[in-house]
Amino acid sequence: MLINCTAYQRGHKLADLPVERIGDYLQQPDTFVWIALEDATAEELALMSETFGLHELAIEDAHHGHQRPKVEEYNDGDDGSTSLFAVMHLIDENEGRLQVGEIHVFIGTDYILSVRNNSARDFLGVRARCEREPKKLAKGGPGYVFYALMDAVVDRYFPHIERLESEVEALEDRIFTKGAARSNIRRLYRLKRKATLLKHAVTPLMEAAGKLHGGRVPDVCTKSRHYFRDIYDHLTRINASLDGIRDTISTAIQVNLSLVAIDQTEVSKRLAAWAGIFAVATALAGIWGMNFTHMPELDWKYGYPMALATIAALGGFLYWQFRKAKWL
Amino acid sequence: MLINCTAYQRGHKLADLPVERIGDYLQQPDTFVWIALEDATAEELALMSETFGLHELAIEDAHHGHQRPKVEEYNDGDDGSTSLFAVMHLIDENEGRLQVGEIHVFIGTDYILSVRNNSARDFLGVRARCEREPKKLAKGGPGYVFYALMDAVVDRYFPHIERLESEVEALEDRIFTKGAARSNIRRLYRLKRKATLLKHAVTPLMEAAGKLHGGRVPDVCTKSRHYFRDIYDHLTRINASLDGIRDTISTAIQVNLSLVAIDQTEVSKRLAAWAGIFAVATALAGIWGMNFTHMPELDWKYGYPMALATIAALGGFLYWQFRKAKWL
Amino acid sequence: MLINCTAYQRGHKLADLPVERIGDYLQQPDTFVWIALEDATAEELALMSETFGLHELAIEDAHHGHQRPKVEEYNDGDDGSTSLFAVMHLIDENEGRLQVGEIHVFIGTDYILSVRNNSARDFLGVRARCEREPKKLAKGGPGYVFYALMDAVVDRYFPHIERLESEVEALEDRIFTKGAARSNIRRLYRLKRKATLLKHAVTPLMEAAGKLHGGRVPDVCTKSRHYFRDIYDHLTRINASLDGIRDTISTAIQVNLSLVAIDQTEVSKRLAAWAGIFAVATALAGIWGMNFTHMPELDWKYGYPMALATIAALGGFLYWQFRKAKWL
Amino acid sequence: MLINCTAYQRGHKLADLPVERIGDYLQQPDTFVWIALEDATAEELALMSETFGLHELAIEDAHHGHQRPKVEEYNDGDDGSTSLFAVMHLIDENEGRLQVGEIHVFIGTDYILSVRNNSARDFLGVRARCEREPKKLAKGGPGYVFYALMDAVVDRYFPHIERLESEVEALEDRIFTKGAARSNIRRLYRLKRKATLLKHAVTPLMEAAGKLHGGRVPDVCTKSRHYFRDIYDHLTRINASLDGIRDTISTAIQVNLSLVAIDQTEVSKRLAAWAGIFAVATALAGIWGMNFTHMPELDWKYGYPMALATIAALGGFLYWQFRKAKWL
Amino acid sequence: MLINCTAYQRGHKLADLPVERIGDYLQQPDTFVWIALEDATAEELALMSETFGLHELAIEDAHHGHQRPKVEEYNDGDDGSTSLFAVMHLIDENEGRLQVGEIHVFIGTDYILSVRNNSARDFLGVRARCEREPKKLAKGGPGYVFYALMDAVVDRYFPHIERLESEVEALEDRIFTKGAARSNIRRLYRLKRKATLLKHAVTPLMEAAGKLHGGRVPDVCTKSRHYFRDIYDHLTRINASLDGIRDTISTAIQVNLSLVAIDQTEVSKRLAAWAGIFAVATALAGIWGMNFTHMPELDWKYGYPMALATIAALGGFLYWQFRKAKWL
Repeated sequence: MLINCTAYQRGHKLADLPVERIGDYLQQPDTFVWIALEDATAEELALMSETFGLHELAIEDAHHGHQRPKVEEYNDGDDGSTSLFAVMHLIDENEGRLQVGEIHVFIGTDYILSVRNNSARDFLGVRARCEREPKKLAKGGPGYVFYALMDAVVDRYFPHIERLESEVEALEDRIFTKGAARSNIRRLYRLKRKATLLKHAVTPLMEAAGKLHGGRVPDVCTKSRHYFRDIYDHLTRINASLDGIRDTISTAIQVNLSLVAIDQTEVSKRLAAWAGIFAVATALAGIWGMNFTHMPELDWKYGYPMALATIAALGGFLYWQFRKAKWL
Repeated sequence: MLINCTAYQRGHKLADLPVERIGDYLQQPDTFVWIALEDATAEELALMSETFGLHELAIEDAHHGHQRPKVEEYNDGDDGSTSLFAVMHLIDENEGRLQVGEIHVFIGTDYILSVRNNSARDFLGVRARCEREPKKLAKGGPGYVFYALMDAVVDRYFPHIERLESEVEALEDRIFTKGAARSNIRRLYRLKRKATLLKHAVTPLMEAAGKLHGGRVPDVCTKSRHYFRDIYDHLTRINASLDGIRDTISTAIQVNLSLVAIDQTEVSKRLAAWAGIFAVATALAGIWGMNFTHMPELDWKYGYPMALATIAALGGFLYWQFRKAKWL
Repeated sequence: MLINCTAYQRGHKLADLPVERIGDYLQQPDTFVWIALEDATAEELALMSETFGLHELAIEDAHHGHQRPKVEEYNDGDDGSTSLFAVMHLIDENEGRLQVGEIHVFIGTDYILSVRNNSARDFLGVRARCEREPKKLAKGGPGYVFYALMDAVVDRYFPHIERLESEVEALEDRIFTKGAARSNIRRLYRLKRKATLLKHAVTPLMEAAGKLHGGRVPDVCTKSRHYFRDIYDHLTRINASLDGIRDTISTAIQVNLSLVAIDQTEVSKRLAAWAGIFAVATALAGIWGMNFTHMPELDWKYGYPMALATIAALGGFLYWQFRKAKWL
Repeated sequence: MLINCTAYQRGHKLADLPVERIGDYLQQPDTFVWIALEDATAEELALMSETFGLHELAIEDAHHGHQRPKVEEYNDGDDGSTSLFAVMHLIDENEGRLQVGEIHVFIGTDYILSVRNNSARDFLGVRARCEREPKKLAKGGPGYVFYALMDAVVDRYFPHIERLESEVEALEDRIFTKGAARSNIRRLYRLKRKATLLKHAVTPLMEAAGKLHGGRVPDVCTKSRHYFRDIYDHLTRINASLDGIRDTISTAIQVNLSLVAIDQTEVSKRLAAWAGIFAVATALAGIWGMNFTHMPELDWKYGYPMALATIAALGGFLYWQFRKAKWL
Repeated sequence: MLINCTAYQRGHKLADLPVERIGDYLQQPDTFVWIALEDATAEELALMSETFGLHELAIEDAHHGHQRPKVEEYNDGDDGSTSLFAVMHLIDENEGRLQVGEIHVFIGTDYILSVRNNSARDFLGVRARCEREPKKLAKGGPGYVFYALMDAVVDRYFPHIERLESEVEALEDRIFTKGAARSNIRRLYRLKRKATLLKHAVTPLMEAAGKLHGGRVPDVCTKSRHYFRDIYDHLTRINASLDGIRDTISTAIQVNLSLVAIDQTEVSKRLAAWAGIFAVATALAGIWGMNFTHMPELDWKYGYPMALATIAALGGFLYWQFRKAKWL
């Protein structure tokens, strides 16, 4: 579905145009076309491919989806020009579950085409931002738009990271609470899965962004290389946070297991202590319950209270001993 | 066993030919021969080696089998030309078990020879696909055929990955189910083994494919380098998925252990609680079963009901206490 | 909030100056301006950006804070000069918790601007040190000041490392103490978190410092490269210590778990041993408490003492056996 | 102990010769000498060192033994020629234990000297193989002999790997067998040790072999570089197998621990269930064994059968409950 | 404290000299001075710094101590000459504990200065060795002395490694012994700590030594590069041994935990089995101890022996069952 198709000249919006007229604008100097599609059909992609001469493999990737984040350079245009094909993951939170969408971006010297799949949030804010900065847009062209898109995508990762971090912190307080082991381990597992999903979005994009600044940068991005370094920097930070979160979760799983084992030992100790106290009582009662004819103490006047006292005294003594040994 | 032996000129099929006549076709311009063998004998390999001047070490590898996936370049032909020798793993699922076959491919400037071992699925679809695209075949030659074969091999990995992923997901729902720990751990172990087997097929091939695009590419592949990058990309994705699966399995094994330990603690607590309740009852019954002459309560009219009531009351109190402490 | 704004000429303090007059001093030869801000507002940053021509992305980072430690080079000044932007973490201990502040430093050929955020400790000592060494200051200029700041930041990491190391060592003595498992695991977890926090401060800074000596060094730092190697060296040492601490903590967590499990087994053994001894006593007492008419031993004169002796003997024998088997 | 000392000219055996006459042959064109020693004494090594001008450090290594596998290049001969010194591990199985021997090889332009230590298996087969291939021997010279030796050493690793793999596979079937946990863990530990020992032999040799093909290859090996790549390839495969084995063992140790824990929980559950059933019986019997005067049911005609029935019914009910809960 | 101060000319000892006269000798051709200090004071270091023009940062490091092992190159002498500063760890065993000392070495074209700190063992043997080899000393100069010192330091690591290895091996025999779990885990922890301490000494030194042979070697070491490769080689071997030891310890900790868990299960099984046997006896005795009026078997003549027989038979049967199930 077409969302936008606009031509820009020297950084200023020229016109919204129907797809068929793109060709006219591409020939004008200092002009580029910016098209945004959503959940594009095969026909729409085919039309785009024809209009801009996109590489068949890139189109195939965009059609199939489920790509790893990446930035690829294609350079077999007839005029020796190179074009870029980028895949980025869009992460939306939906009722506590993370959902992965994708945005595919094709960037040439005079066009930029973005195809958003399986994600509800649009990128109209990016267009507005670019139009507010005509100087930068004029200087950077499609490369700057690409940067602005990427920046928006990456900015949307931050809230997820922050939520993860605060969930981890909340768990840290819970982890030493007795009786919460089962729910903690379930939460830890779920957090680990979320962190992994985000990592799959972030790490490959970070690696790709690393190639857009520094030594050998694709032509279309050279004028925006400081901006791409900034994105690379943000991705590095997110990546480090994710590594930290994953490491903390691993430690927390181990710690949780240790705490369960400690809990088990404490239960065993209390069980053993009480079992001991009652075993003594039962054994003594059993002995005085034996049917021997000659058991003098049975006939004593205060035999019974003495028996009770003995049992109570032994029990008390054991209780005190176990208490001292921290078993009770 | 010979499956096919066909000559192609400028991308079009020229003729199916007997092995003896290969030499005639090799001398024609813009022509290459494509031979497919299955479970080749030493004699067949020797004949091929002679016909195309294959390197003895490559032939030996193809004969012995059980190779790691790889792409090797040989360059001591008399005319300074280089040839490639590739090994790829073919994974078939057979009654829930993965079975590893191999395909060995020899690629020269005017020939491509594939030898399939220990796998039931043929590659006739690849031939059909290539013949439908004569332009690409004419441009890329044996290198393009090599790409098409590799693409088919890699495409066959995807269903295995998807099956693994859905098995892991199914396990995730089961892992928090009580009483399934033993079968879960068995499944996790089996999944780990499958993931390892696939990893052994994918990672070395990914590394090899990485050398077929980018900086220094063997001559025979240069015209298809974008295609090989596409394959490299697919393999990178599969590899990342496998790493994710393995990581999830590891976490799941740990989580499973934690859950078993938690289960154990819960069992211990219930055991301890009930043991306590009955120990009290038994001790009291034992005391009133003692044979002392002077035990006044034994003669009370309501002594027995009182005793029963005491035992029940103490039991009830303990039950309530254990309930409160979440031991029951 | 402005803390200092001073001009230096050939290593000597020229004058404290109001921010508006910076421009006058920048034009003098062999002169540079050193400004220190604390928790700078957006307006202050904007003014600085205008005065020194700082890059918008660097300013944005400084404004938002929560950056990863880094040293970035910007080189699109009109005169081809490059400037640096550095982020370092400041770690303060506050009632046993580590708190992370930041210092952002902008370094150009004739200025150095430091912005300290969220940290109570100032860097006046650095200024004093630099002014005591006019020769070095004259030779190294803003690069030397940058070194002195970094050196002070890194020096402040050492006490944290030492405290961590001594806490770990204290734990090592406690870890084999019975009954401390729960508090040990809690402490280990807390230490792990502290070590992780320090690692996030140290490792990226170490990587950044590695680029300030050796092959390709930013212009402004070339004359101080031995100093930066020294810092790199300190950071490498801290980093190695942190890795050692983390490794030790991991091992300690495992060892703690093992000790808990051993403790559990020992408890089980003692429980089993005592349960066995009393079970025998109770069973025997029960048997002699049965109401059969014909139980000859019940009428023996020494039946009762014999019964007690049997029970005691059996109990003693079992006790001795369990003692021998180290269960008691 | 000298095993062989033979001169070869243009790939053909010239003569077996006494050590003293080596000098004569070294001066002939296209000739090289191949000497094999076993458990060489210091004197023998000194003689060799003098004859061929071997480097003192290499001789020292060969004398002391217990070296890591390696291939070192020495290039301070007077004539600018380089020589190689290689160390490889020989692994023999002896009553189920792996034993490590070493072979040290010195390779120059006109000689190759091998010293075998602490290993019973000789390399006569290598000599026979080389003499059967005079063409290759003539072309490759001492470098080819070096290859043939290395190939033989590496070929002898394969059976160990296969035995390890089949032992691991056998364990996999045993691991889910109840009651074998203790012997499994012992075997797993032993397998891990064997895998580690083989890894110490394989990985450094693989790294060394990686430098004998590809970019910068020592002179003496250039003509055999395809052969060294083949060896490198084999070592890579062995190395990957070993990594797989080690990974499987690690997982198996974890799985084994999980199974022990599950086993423990099952035992606890059965213990708890039976303890519960009998506790009820004992408590009831105790109650009816109390000596209260007024216990009407004691005088009922069918009091006793009723009591037995009650106990049996309760026991049966509990049994059924535990059965349902999978505790029994 | 000064230990030695000697001048060497063309490899031969010229004279022991007082520190003040060093300057005279430095001007003679082919001459260098070798000074050894022990636990040097700040004054001694200052004097040395002045005499040889040592870099302030190196002096500071030597003064503060607690450095990581390293080899640093300083090259801002006025005459373009470079000097080296090396730090190595000295490990002494003291009553079973490892103690870390340091040796700092400053190497220039015509001097070598070593400062030994916190270690009782001197390096007089190194001096003796060098003086026995005047040729090498003449050729290599201070670089050769540096090598000889390093060689001595590294040689002293070997006994520690061997002791560690034999301690690990001794533990391996103990690990499967029942009842030693607690002492084993304590020893494993201590071994891990020792291995970590040695690793901190070895790994950085190995990395540093790696830069003293191969491509870009400091001037002063070029003539001894084969010797440094030999040291690098030794360090690589030690490093690999340490990695092996650490890996074995990790596995042993895991195995120990598994064995404790298995032990626990076995104890539980025995506990359960005996508890079962006695519970049956007690329940039966309790039943026949009930006070019902009509319990016909109580009046049977052989009622009592029959009861005992029943109890014994049931007990025996259970014992046999548990035995069969390997619980006893």
